[in-house]
Amino acid sequence: MNVTIDFGGTNIKIGLVREGSVLVKTSIPALSDNGLLTRLPDVEQGIRRLLSGAGVSLADCRGIGIALPGIIDGEGKTLLSIKDKYTDALGFDFAGWSASQLGLPLVVENDARAALLGEIAYGNARGEKDAVLVIFGTGIGTAAMIGGEVVRGRHGQAGILGGHLATDIYGERCNCGNPGCLEAQASHWAIPLRAAKLPGFADSMLAGEKDWGYETILRASEEGDAFAARLEADLLLHWGAGIVNLIHAYDPEVVILSGGLMKSADRLLPRLAERVRETAWTPWGTPRFTVAEDPETSVLLGMSYLASRQQHASKGE
Amino acid sequence: MNVTIDFGGTNIKIGLVREGSVLVKTSIPALSDNGLLTRLPDVEQGIRRLLSGAGVSLADCRGIGIALPGIIDGEGKTLLSIKDKYTDALGFDFAGWSASQLGLPLVVENDARAALLGEIAYGNARGEKDAVLVIFGTGIGTAAMIGGEVVRGRHGQAGILGGHLATDIYGERCNCGNPGCLEAQASHWAIPLRAAKLPGFADSMLAGEKDWGYETILRASEEGDAFAARLEADLLLHWGAGIVNLIHAYDPEVVILSGGLMKSADRLLPRLAERVRETAWTPWGTPRFTVAEDPETSVLLGMSYLASRQQHASKGE
Repeated sequence: MNVTIDFGGTNIKIGLVREGSVLVKTSIPALSDNGLLTRLPDVEQGIRRLLSGAGVSLADCRGIGIALPGIIDGEGKTLLSIKDKYTDALGFDFAGWSASQLGLPLVVENDARAALLGEIAYGNARGEKDAVLVIFGTGIGTAAMIGGEVVRGRHGQAGILGGHLATDIYGERCNCGNPGCLEAQASHWAIPLRAAKLPGFADSMLAGEKDWGYETILRASEEGDAFAARLEADLLLHWGAGIVNLIHAYDPEVVILSGGLMKSADRLLPRLAERVRETAWTPWGTPRFTVAEDPETSVLLGMSYLASRQQHASKGE
Repeated sequence: MNVTIDFGGTNIKIGLVREGSVLVKTSIPALSDNGLLTRLPDVEQGIRRLLSGAGVSLADCRGIGIALPGIIDGEGKTLLSIKDKYTDALGFDFAGWSASQLGLPLVVENDARAALLGEIAYGNARGEKDAVLVIFGTGIGTAAMIGGEVVRGRHGQAGILGGHLATDIYGERCNCGNPGCLEAQASHWAIPLRAAKLPGFADSMLAGEKDWGYETILRASEEGDAFAARLEADLLLHWGAGIVNLIHAYDPEVVILSGGLMKSADRLLPRLAERVRETAWTPWGTPRFTVAEDPETSVLLGMSYLASRQQHASKGE
C-alpha cells in the first residue's frame, strides 16, 4: 500500500492505493497562493485521518508518491522549476519531510507523467508503449512515452512541456516567458484573459461571468451565445494543433486526454479526433484517442506505481 | 570505406567516406520533378566515376548509405512518406537495387537524422548525447537525440518532424496538410509564397526577384529594403520559436544548426541564441549552439556511420 498526493492548483488530493486501485481518497483546499510548505501540516493530518478512517496504520504503507505541476529532477526527489504557484517548494527536501514526519520513503514526479503512467499501468491505455497524454486542467500538462520508456530528457523536461509548444507566436505570452504557447492561448487560466481582448466580448454572456473557463464557454456556446461559439471554434483549433504537435514530436499510437475539459468529452472528442485526422502527418495510420476515466485517480495510481517501483529498485529487485 | 548518397531537392550528393572523412565527393542535378527512380542510372554512373577517379574499386567498399528527405521505416530500408518530390520512390526496394547494381548492402535514413549522427560522430557536436539539429534547407528538417539514442518513435517519425511543429496556426497551411507548421511559414520554399501576401511586398526589391529565399531576403534587408527588414525580423521570430519548440520537446544540451541559411550564421546566430535565451523554459541553463561546418558533409558522414554500424550489426559485432 502506498500513500499518494497530488498537489493541484485548486485542491490537494490524497489517496491510499493498493495494487492499482485507490482504496480511499480525500481532498483539501490547495490555497496555493500561500505556497506549498505551509500546507504540509494539513497534508500530514489528511494522511493520518485517511489512514485511520480506513483502519490502516502507517506501518502498513510502503512509500509515498507526490505529484507536482512542475519540472522534477531526474532522481525523483526535488522540484526544479514551477510557474506562479508553489514556488516556495523549489529545492525542498520532500524525502526528508516524509522520513521525519511519516517514516516512509518518497518519490516525486511531474503530475502529467504520473497520470500517463497511471493510465498505462492500470487505466484506459493499459499495456500501451507509445503514447502521449494531455491534461486540460488549470494549465495544460503533457507527458510522452516512446517504446515503453517515459520520455524524460537530459534535465527531466522532455515530454512534459507540450503545453509550452507554440500554437501562435503572435499570440499571448505564456507565464513561462515564451510567446505563443498552447497553454497561454487555450488553457483554463488563459482563456478569460485572451477572450476579454477579442472583439464582441462585451456583448457576450461571458462578460458577466467570474472565474470562468472551459465549462462556462461550452455552456454559453450551447445556449446560443455567438461570441462563445466563435471562441469554442477557435479553441478547438488550438487544442487540435497542440495534440498534432505532440503526435509530430513523439509519434504515439495512443493519445490520452484528461483534465476538467474532458467532462465535455462527448461534445469535443469527435471534433478533436476529426481535426487531428485532417491535419496530422501520420502515413502509418491515425493514433487512437482515449479519455482518462477519472483524472484524479490516474495521477494517484501513477504515483503509487512509481513509489512501488522505487521500493523494488532500492531492494535491487 | 562506404558509398554515401544524399538525395536533396536540388542536387544529389555522392561521397566516398572512410573513417569519418569524406575522401571525394561529387554532385549531380536532382531534377526531382521527374522523380527519384529515373535518376538511379545517373547515380550509379556517378558512383562508378567517383570510385575510378579515386582509384578505388567497388570491392574496397563495404556498404552504401542513402539519405532521403522523408519518413523512413524502422529497418532503414524503405521510404514510407515524402511530400511533393521523389514520391515515386515510396516503398522502393533500395537494397535490391544496390545488391543487383553494385553488390553492396544498403541502409536508408532520413537526411536530418543522418546529419545529426554525422555531427555527433565526427563533427561539431562530437560526443554529445542530448542534441537537436535543424537543417534550414529547401524545407526545414530536424532530428533529436536523447541520452545517446536517436529519437525515432514507434513509426520512425519522432524527432524528424520539428519543421512540422506549429508556429502560427492561423498562418499558411503546410504541404504536409497541417496549418501553421514552421516549415510553411519560414522555410526557403515557403517564404516567397507567404511574403507575396504581406503588405508592402510590391514596393520591395524582392518583388522583382525570381527563385528567391533566405539569401535574397538577408541581402535586401542589409541593403536597406524596409519590407525585407520587417520580413527578416518576422522570420527570426519563427526560427527562434521553432528552435524553442525543439528544446521544449527534447530537452537538449546542444542545438546544431545547418543548411543554406547558416551561410549567414554570423548575422543570425547571435540573434537566434538571444531569442532562445529570452523565451525558452530551461531552468537548468541554456543549450549551447553550434553550426555544422559543412551541411553536405555531415549528411554523408552520418550515412557512412550508419552503413558501418549496420555492417557491425549484421556480423554480430
